[in-house]
Amino acid sequence: MALVVMKFGGSSVADANKMKIVASKIIAKKNASNKIVVVVSAPGNTTDNLFESVDKVTSNPPLRELDMLLATGEIISISLLAMTFSSMGQKAISLTGPQAGIFADSSYTRARIKKINPKKIKSLLAKNSIVIVAGFQALNPKGDITTLGRGGSDLTAVALAAELKADLCEIYSDVEGVYTTDPRIIKTARKLDYISYDEMLEMAGSGAQVLQSRSIEVAKKFKVEIHSRSTFSQNQGTIITSEEKIRRKKMETLLVSGITFDKNQVKFTIVDLPDIPGVAAKIFSKLAKNSVNVDMIIQSAAVNKKNDISFTVCKQDAKKAQLELDNIIEEFKNSQVVYDEHVAKISVVGIGMKSNAGVAAKMFEILYKKGINIEMISTSEIKISCIVDERDMTKAIEELHKGFGLAKKVEKFS
Amino acid sequence: MALVVMKFGGSSVADANKMKIVASKIIAKKNASNKIVVVVSAPGNTTDNLFESVDKVTSNPPLRELDMLLATGEIISISLLAMTFSSMGQKAISLTGPQAGIFADSSYTRARIKKINPKKIKSLLAKNSIVIVAGFQALNPKGDITTLGRGGSDLTAVALAAELKADLCEIYSDVEGVYTTDPRIIKTARKLDYISYDEMLEMAGSGAQVLQSRSIEVAKKFKVEIHSRSTFSQNQGTIITSEEKIRRKKMETLLVSGITFDKNQVKFTIVDLPDIPGVAAKIFSKLAKNSVNVDMIIQSAAVNKKNDISFTVCKQDAKKAQLELDNIIEEFKNSQVVYDEHVAKISVVGIGMKSNAGVAAKMFEILYKKGINIEMISTSEIKISCIVDERDMTKAIEELHKGFGLAKKVEKFS
Repeated sequence: MALVVMKFGGSSVADANKMKIVASKIIAKKNASNKIVVVVSAPGNTTDNLFESVDKVTSNPPLRELDMLLATGEIISISLLAMTFSSMGQKAISLTGPQAGIFADSSYTRARIKKINPKKIKSLLAKNSIVIVAGFQALNPKGDITTLGRGGSDLTAVALAAELKADLCEIYSDVEGVYTTDPRIIKTARKLDYISYDEMLEMAGSGAQVLQSRSIEVAKKFKVEIHSRSTFSQNQGTIITSEEKIRRKKMETLLVSGITFDKNQVKFTIVDLPDIPGVAAKIFSKLAKNSVNVDMIIQSAAVNKKNDISFTVCKQDAKKAQLELDNIIEEFKNSQVVYDEHVAKISVVGIGMKSNAGVAAKMFEILYKKGINIEMISTSEIKISCIVDERDMTKAIEELHKGFGLAKKVEKFS
Repeated sequence: MALVVMKFGGSSVADANKMKIVASKIIAKKNASNKIVVVVSAPGNTTDNLFESVDKVTSNPPLRELDMLLATGEIISISLLAMTFSSMGQKAISLTGPQAGIFADSSYTRARIKKINPKKIKSLLAKNSIVIVAGFQALNPKGDITTLGRGGSDLTAVALAAELKADLCEIYSDVEGVYTTDPRIIKTARKLDYISYDEMLEMAGSGAQVLQSRSIEVAKKFKVEIHSRSTFSQNQGTIITSEEKIRRKKMETLLVSGITFDKNQVKFTIVDLPDIPGVAAKIFSKLAKNSVNVDMIIQSAAVNKKNDISFTVCKQDAKKAQLELDNIIEEFKNSQVVYDEHVAKISVVGIGMKSNAGVAAKMFEILYKKGINIEMISTSEIKISCIVDERDMTKAIEELHKGFGLAKKVEKFS
């Protein structure tokens, strides 16, 4: 008897018919001699509708009350899904996050799970019931209902899998798994059979939206194997697991696992900054204080006691950043801020590059050969990111995808 | 400093604008040196929408899950209302029924409140916060969320007022108070300044839908004075209080306080039943076993060892009752069931009739004079009900309303 945690996103429980498909999938899994814990998100666009109600009341809701409101979405899913099971003759029971024993810290709207008390879930599993847990929500030390932030249901699923020592954690969505790049843009994109936690983290952080980053961190920490797959097909998806396991299982490791991209970036450059200590610290601490999230940063070597600093922020923060920068540079005479919102970040991710020095060079060469100018570069142990002109994005992805041997063969009918 | 519990129904919190009206009313009350506990129902037609989602899934939902789902409606109200207060610069905090310490028995969909632990509410009131409590919901001994049945938010308000020893319990709705009869039908209907718990109970039980019966029972038991009034006006409504207080306050007691009616009745008559012991017991215990709620019952004196029994049930139960009766009378040869769904129940309610024997006679005479036939009669200490032909209903109410001196003067422009 294995224990499986199955998580379904909002689009999988958007209406009664989809709930029936989900329930059938779960029953089939249970009948194959498994104990099942199901985690669900709010149905379809329920959360958007709740936000709309808030907008009509205030632009600045107290976060405690926002969490109280948002948590209703998942309660609607769990109770309706439990009813669906009942109508199919299957024993199932729904639990809110607090009822499931999920305890978080004191922050609202992006609370962190502190502890799980699995007593109630275990006793219900022992009674042969399918246990349906509301994703995205927890109880804080004050007894308030809080939410875990964007993609929080993934986190609920992975954390429960860790606490219950589940044999498997399946994350269902409307995509088939993790791809070498976005198949909506590059037709030759290939679904990966395996990907390591670290690669998945880098991909999530650089544009791929399959899984929430924090849930991958938790999965890595507690060695929870995740199977990312589609609700609406029977196909195998992608297993997200440890590097060691992948190395053991696979004959050959890919140099690069995926190409990600992010158009939601604005590039700022401050030119002619004085080359004195503390300038960069001043700029970035001011931005941080105003909750501007800075992504890539590069600083050129000083020439004639002058420096240029470039960095990117996401488009939502660009306005805030600009206002703040105008203030900051007042004290640096002759300095100037220029920005460019027509940029895209392209990243190449792969654990293979740990032991292979040529990946960066190869990336630059591929782009150079196609006449694509690289505006910024940043690297991590398993990722290289370049900022390019937005208009070059698709071509860049395509060439890198092909150049690193990720493309599947496309049948030609000619 | 007085403590006031204010309850608002679903139509009062149906949208952001109405919430602002409600919030302004509450703030005005608070500024007049009061501590405030607010109880709200689910907004507008939220509950209907939730039932619609259920219908798409199953016609027979597990009641635990139904309660889990329905409770989300009030959570939406309380959190949005708390945000409304925040946007108006007022300190307020929302609590679900369980968070407010409302504990119920183990039954679902019509749980009974067993205990209230007011610790959290009291500590929030001490911090000068407006406390907003979700009506209609409680926590059961298993830790499940349950609901208190139709009109359960009234019950939440009255029970909290009792537990907190509130100085006043205001129940706001879209009507101005309790009327001598339905003003939508009888133009001369008059709003009552006072009504006793017992009269209100009889009126609630015989068609008037201002307040839920159980909440009136609790108010009577714990001597909670209720002010039933309109959200959308400043007028005084109706005070529901003890008979003694009314007698003390008023110069003159009305013989009759109100005329109620109920069209939702079907009259059954079983003719030619054998006049032997146990026949009535057999019939009504079978009906009770099938959850058919019987209202009025009359049995004629036996003639020739034969009896007739008539009774009324609400329209929703009529089909069930008929099927059951067909089974029952098979063993009584020559007996026959006839039914009439075109009937209405008219009731005259008033504590004045306790000490005045002529009320029944007067009622029958008023109806007789207008040629209205009385098909059934039943009486309680402060109520007399008659079943009449549906077509005579409005005329009967009008004549009784006038005959007992309840009508207000109607201005004539001629």
